[in-house]
Amino acid sequence: MIVRPHPSPISLLFILRGSIIRAIVAELVVVFLAAACVTGVYHLRPMWFSGISLAPFTLLGLALSIFLGFRNNACYQRWWEARQQWGQLIAETRSFMRDLGALLPGQEERRQRLGRRAVAFAHALRCQLRGEPLEAAQPWLPAQDWAALAALRGKPGEILNIQSREIAGALRDGAMTDILYRLFSERLAVMGNIQAACERLQSTPTPFAYTLLLHRTAWLFCLLAPIGIASTLGWMTPFATVVLAYAFFGLDALGQELQEPFERTANAVPLDALARIIEISVLEALGETEIPKPLQPQDFVLL
Amino acid sequence: MIVRPHPSPISLLFILRGSIIRAIVAELVVVFLAAACVTGVYHLRPMWFSGISLAPFTLLGLALSIFLGFRNNACYQRWWEARQQWGQLIAETRSFMRDLGALLPGQEERRQRLGRRAVAFAHALRCQLRGEPLEAAQPWLPAQDWAALAALRGKPGEILNIQSREIAGALRDGAMTDILYRLFSERLAVMGNIQAACERLQSTPTPFAYTLLLHRTAWLFCLLAPIGIASTLGWMTPFATVVLAYAFFGLDALGQELQEPFERTANAVPLDALARIIEISVLEALGETEIPKPLQPQDFVLL
Amino acid sequence: MIVRPHPSPISLLFILRGSIIRAIVAELVVVFLAAACVTGVYHLRPMWFSGISLAPFTLLGLALSIFLGFRNNACYQRWWEARQQWGQLIAETRSFMRDLGALLPGQEERRQRLGRRAVAFAHALRCQLRGEPLEAAQPWLPAQDWAALAALRGKPGEILNIQSREIAGALRDGAMTDILYRLFSERLAVMGNIQAACERLQSTPTPFAYTLLLHRTAWLFCLLAPIGIASTLGWMTPFATVVLAYAFFGLDALGQELQEPFERTANAVPLDALARIIEISVLEALGETEIPKPLQPQDFVLL
Amino acid sequence: MIVRPHPSPISLLFILRGSIIRAIVAELVVVFLAAACVTGVYHLRPMWFSGISLAPFTLLGLALSIFLGFRNNACYQRWWEARQQWGQLIAETRSFMRDLGALLPGQEERRQRLGRRAVAFAHALRCQLRGEPLEAAQPWLPAQDWAALAALRGKPGEILNIQSREIAGALRDGAMTDILYRLFSERLAVMGNIQAACERLQSTPTPFAYTLLLHRTAWLFCLLAPIGIASTLGWMTPFATVVLAYAFFGLDALGQELQEPFERTANAVPLDALARIIEISVLEALGETEIPKPLQPQDFVLL
Amino acid sequence: MIVRPHPSPISLLFILRGSIIRAIVAELVVVFLAAACVTGVYHLRPMWFSGISLAPFTLLGLALSIFLGFRNNACYQRWWEARQQWGQLIAETRSFMRDLGALLPGQEERRQRLGRRAVAFAHALRCQLRGEPLEAAQPWLPAQDWAALAALRGKPGEILNIQSREIAGALRDGAMTDILYRLFSERLAVMGNIQAACERLQSTPTPFAYTLLLHRTAWLFCLLAPIGIASTLGWMTPFATVVLAYAFFGLDALGQELQEPFERTANAVPLDALARIIEISVLEALGETEIPKPLQPQDFVLL
Repeated sequence: MIVRPHPSPISLLFILRGSIIRAIVAELVVVFLAAACVTGVYHLRPMWFSGISLAPFTLLGLALSIFLGFRNNACYQRWWEARQQWGQLIAETRSFMRDLGALLPGQEERRQRLGRRAVAFAHALRCQLRGEPLEAAQPWLPAQDWAALAALRGKPGEILNIQSREIAGALRDGAMTDILYRLFSERLAVMGNIQAACERLQSTPTPFAYTLLLHRTAWLFCLLAPIGIASTLGWMTPFATVVLAYAFFGLDALGQELQEPFERTANAVPLDALARIIEISVLEALGETEIPKPLQPQDFVLL
Repeated sequence: MIVRPHPSPISLLFILRGSIIRAIVAELVVVFLAAACVTGVYHLRPMWFSGISLAPFTLLGLALSIFLGFRNNACYQRWWEARQQWGQLIAETRSFMRDLGALLPGQEERRQRLGRRAVAFAHALRCQLRGEPLEAAQPWLPAQDWAALAALRGKPGEILNIQSREIAGALRDGAMTDILYRLFSERLAVMGNIQAACERLQSTPTPFAYTLLLHRTAWLFCLLAPIGIASTLGWMTPFATVVLAYAFFGLDALGQELQEPFERTANAVPLDALARIIEISVLEALGETEIPKPLQPQDFVLL
Repeated sequence: MIVRPHPSPISLLFILRGSIIRAIVAELVVVFLAAACVTGVYHLRPMWFSGISLAPFTLLGLALSIFLGFRNNACYQRWWEARQQWGQLIAETRSFMRDLGALLPGQEERRQRLGRRAVAFAHALRCQLRGEPLEAAQPWLPAQDWAALAALRGKPGEILNIQSREIAGALRDGAMTDILYRLFSERLAVMGNIQAACERLQSTPTPFAYTLLLHRTAWLFCLLAPIGIASTLGWMTPFATVVLAYAFFGLDALGQELQEPFERTANAVPLDALARIIEISVLEALGETEIPKPLQPQDFVLL
Repeated sequence: MIVRPHPSPISLLFILRGSIIRAIVAELVVVFLAAACVTGVYHLRPMWFSGISLAPFTLLGLALSIFLGFRNNACYQRWWEARQQWGQLIAETRSFMRDLGALLPGQEERRQRLGRRAVAFAHALRCQLRGEPLEAAQPWLPAQDWAALAALRGKPGEILNIQSREIAGALRDGAMTDILYRLFSERLAVMGNIQAACERLQSTPTPFAYTLLLHRTAWLFCLLAPIGIASTLGWMTPFATVVLAYAFFGLDALGQELQEPFERTANAVPLDALARIIEISVLEALGETEIPKPLQPQDFVLL
Repeated sequence: MIVRPHPSPISLLFILRGSIIRAIVAELVVVFLAAACVTGVYHLRPMWFSGISLAPFTLLGLALSIFLGFRNNACYQRWWEARQQWGQLIAETRSFMRDLGALLPGQEERRQRLGRRAVAFAHALRCQLRGEPLEAAQPWLPAQDWAALAALRGKPGEILNIQSREIAGALRDGAMTDILYRLFSERLAVMGNIQAACERLQSTPTPFAYTLLLHRTAWLFCLLAPIGIASTLGWMTPFATVVLAYAFFGLDALGQELQEPFERTANAVPLDALARIIEISVLEALGETEIPKPLQPQDFVLL
């Protein structure tokens, strides 16, 4: 995520970081060259272009705008849902710690284990979503838990299973009633729902056929538009075409980036920073005194 | 679902799998021929076209874009809801297994039966939604359960009923309190809600009158537009018309495909792969050692 | 609801059932005649039309498209919510039967009464929403229940009240704990919510002022557009105007039909068929052997 | 709310009640006069208008359409949420009465008080939302309750507090278990949520800056458009401008009306009629025999 | 939030407060000057502009309108969610007080502490969201609570933890059953969810790349449009360009303001006034007699 004070209007025009322009510069060059060719032909054979107007291309451009608007909305919703799920995970972990603190007052060790394992869950989920090894979860887990995870595919889910067995142990010890067991069981179920929702967002992009259809329509438009523009704008045609291509390809590329909200990119959800917030919340609830600091943006980017 | 690394911009232009173009190639040919006829008439009798502009057709095209944008949004929402419901089923099954593991520690056999029946539910629902025979559920069910299902229409629902009776048995045995019974009853109710939502998505397409109205408007537009385009673009008319038809019919066909999210098609929800994830989660929770692998895409397609 | 296999593109053009065209044929004739008059005037006095372009009418048409798109979205949402509520009613009734089967195993008679009354609720709600007499609910109710309903306005609600008293009887008998009473009370509350939501959808159409504003703008557009089109398309003007009128009035009429999702019309929610599904689910859960068949579409229409 | 059978297409054109036209007649007159002036200038100095086209104004008009479409959607959502909240209040009150009837069978007096106070809550909320004195709630409250309310600001909230104390009394009497107390506490909490949501809708209109920006853009468009239209339509200019102004100002004014869903206006939510439905439901549940009739629309308007 | 009676149409045109115009006046001046330059060039070298039409710029403008419409929708949703969360906080605090009043009748001191701490939570959350010191919470907290907060980062969360420990104390005292503990625990969890949602809205703006892309496209459009307008409108070009720039930059700036709903600005959510409503509700529930008044708008602005 890019974090910066709202820049002045003029500096806004020259910011590169976070700009989508680097992702589409190749497309813009191709479009420019193609438009330059069309303009060249127009100057050699202007009569070929007599009577050609922009109207048919306008129609294509407008249809494209509407479809891009629709797809961007879908991509933005995915990105925002990803952020919501992680916000919910922060809230659930805090509620989990709150009830642990209130209901297991004499059982410091058990609380420590349960709390630290909640942090491990957040790290394991984060690493799985980013396709990274799960080592970040290891320092937060007892050794036998970490060993038990090794053989399993569904590592974050297994951490929840261990949590559940530990709490059920308290139920059998008589340290907790079944009413209170249910309270914790529902917190763990919500964490499981968050995990499933994140896996859904990660594994199911918007239908590939949309990407294809929009991308191809955008190319068709940008390559054909100069034919309609040349007779109107003459040598300015390539520049005008690039401006249009910037808007269309830019929105297309931005949607592409937003629809993968868990990647380690500048516009994605900052999982590292959110996992750190969970660490801080848990350690403060456990009464630790050495609390790490929240992650700070590097070069305006929070990962 | 089509799963592939984001292709390079150039290869994007030549990908056929997942492309909607195969579904609309007949329409495109018809439109091309019709536009070619109009262009022919125009060259024979140009004065018939004098003064004709694209403006009235533009208006129709824009209205069509807006209506197509609306319908596509509705179809996409259906597809996404289908995926959400199955993600929720994965999460619920995992929570069900988690609570079983924590609360029925000594009753290995009962846990096995309940867990494997949860997999059977997923397979039965999957097969019902795809209109396939329910044999895939058989290996996961005790023989008498499978026999009991034979006579009934609502097979997935009956599997939930058997689960419920088994858990109520544990309640009567004293192996479980009523508080914990309620916990399981609510998990089963959520699974029933997922079943009802999937049946709704399968049995209730978007209103047929929309399909008709949009399809007919698209045809009217594509057949009439050449009249307006011919005097502007001359012999390029058929090509320009096909480009417009590609965008409109392509979006129409894509909406049609997405609104049936449970079909066994390339753009649908990959029920087989999701049911396999449920298998893996349940078998790992039951402590099995032979765990099947997640399904891999064949030719970039996950079914 | 119209249920038919996806027709071939060509047959799509000739289907009448489900088409909105029959609802707007009068409007189309009026528009055609008006446009023909304008065209006649244009041929008599062409100089009156010199310099007139379609541009001002285009603007009106586009604004109309956007507003129609918005209203259609709202109407579609209402229709879809209506279908969702009934899908939810199916799921709730099944969960109700599931818990009854598990928790009242020895009390066959009570279960029979509760189950059959749940069917009566669905029928009573269906008939109330369609403005039909509630006789369909009578065979599913004990005689004294039916008599008690006679004097009351809120008949479906009273059926839920009777259910609730029957379950509270089991609580006082000691056949059920208060925990389990709450479980059933919440199922009944959800059914009451579904009832209230359906009554809301039935009694509160989209604001009448919208209907007026859109309908009038559509008329203004269709009557004025020929003035702008005549000088461009000549004698084709009435045909082009009718095509535009087909798209605009068609969408307007379709929205009108969808916003009354409980009517007995071809595009409405098929309450009869859904109530039959509830019958089947309940009878199967009660272990009956004579189960009615699901309703089949008549002439492609499911009511 | 305007309730009328769907009028015939022709009568639709002449209906005034519920039409937004009365709210914008002043604007339309001003626009007409301004356009007439522009047309006058055009006839005196046609060369001033040579070369002026509608294109720049079209762009403004289209942007305005899109922004109006967005704002109308937001206003409609507010109106619909207001209706949903009151539908939910009806359902919650009925569920409250249902559980009272089932769980307090011997305590007729307590049930009477609790039921009638639920009606008082609906009336108090209704009057507060409409800025009317709360006298309508008085007949439904015991005298000491009414006296206690006098000094307090949050009257509907205080009625819920009294309900809660009465139910907690039953808990202390042993007439109810804590499980059942929780059931009622959650019903009251939902009523409190409905109250807070209604207060939110009432006190927080859409941002004033939107209203300003849209209103001003609409004025700019309607005053400038005749400049572009005059050279095309000549003396028809004022009429065409008024048609456009009707669509834009009409939608603007309608959004304004819908965003205040609790006002006593023709297009608002009919709180009086909904509160009457709550009265009927409660009185029927209490077994009263004199039940008031549902409110009927006066002159097609239900308030 | 700006609160004012709906102004007359004419005064609407002259209102400055709340208007977005002050935020964009610099942009408008730049656009005016640039357009004036283009117009000057046009009068010196009209042949450079021969054949140039507005069509290519129209396309850009329309695409921009659609994308702005999408972004505004997203920003408005954020603002509205912020308001919803605070409305929910009011409702939850009232429900919390209601259950305290009903369930802890003899324990006046404990109720006082819990109630006042709920106000402290609202103030601490408000101050954190606005980046202000948390002193406003101090008068509502016992001294040792305030001291305990000093060292911690997550101050609002810690207040909830203290609440939870106090209620668990009542559970251990036997003043409350575990069922009722769960009721309070869920209220606190909802408050924690509200906190997490507000932190999400504050810390995660819409993706910066959107802001960049839209801002740059708006600039490109406003600087290029005069080229297309000049040959049509002549010396009126700068004025027409400024009108377009007013609509586009105005909507852009308004979206920017709405997406930071917790700032101390005129169009933001009035956290001070909402926190005051919580104070009033709590003090009335505690039976205090000196109740502060609701905050009144200053100069039509409620902060």
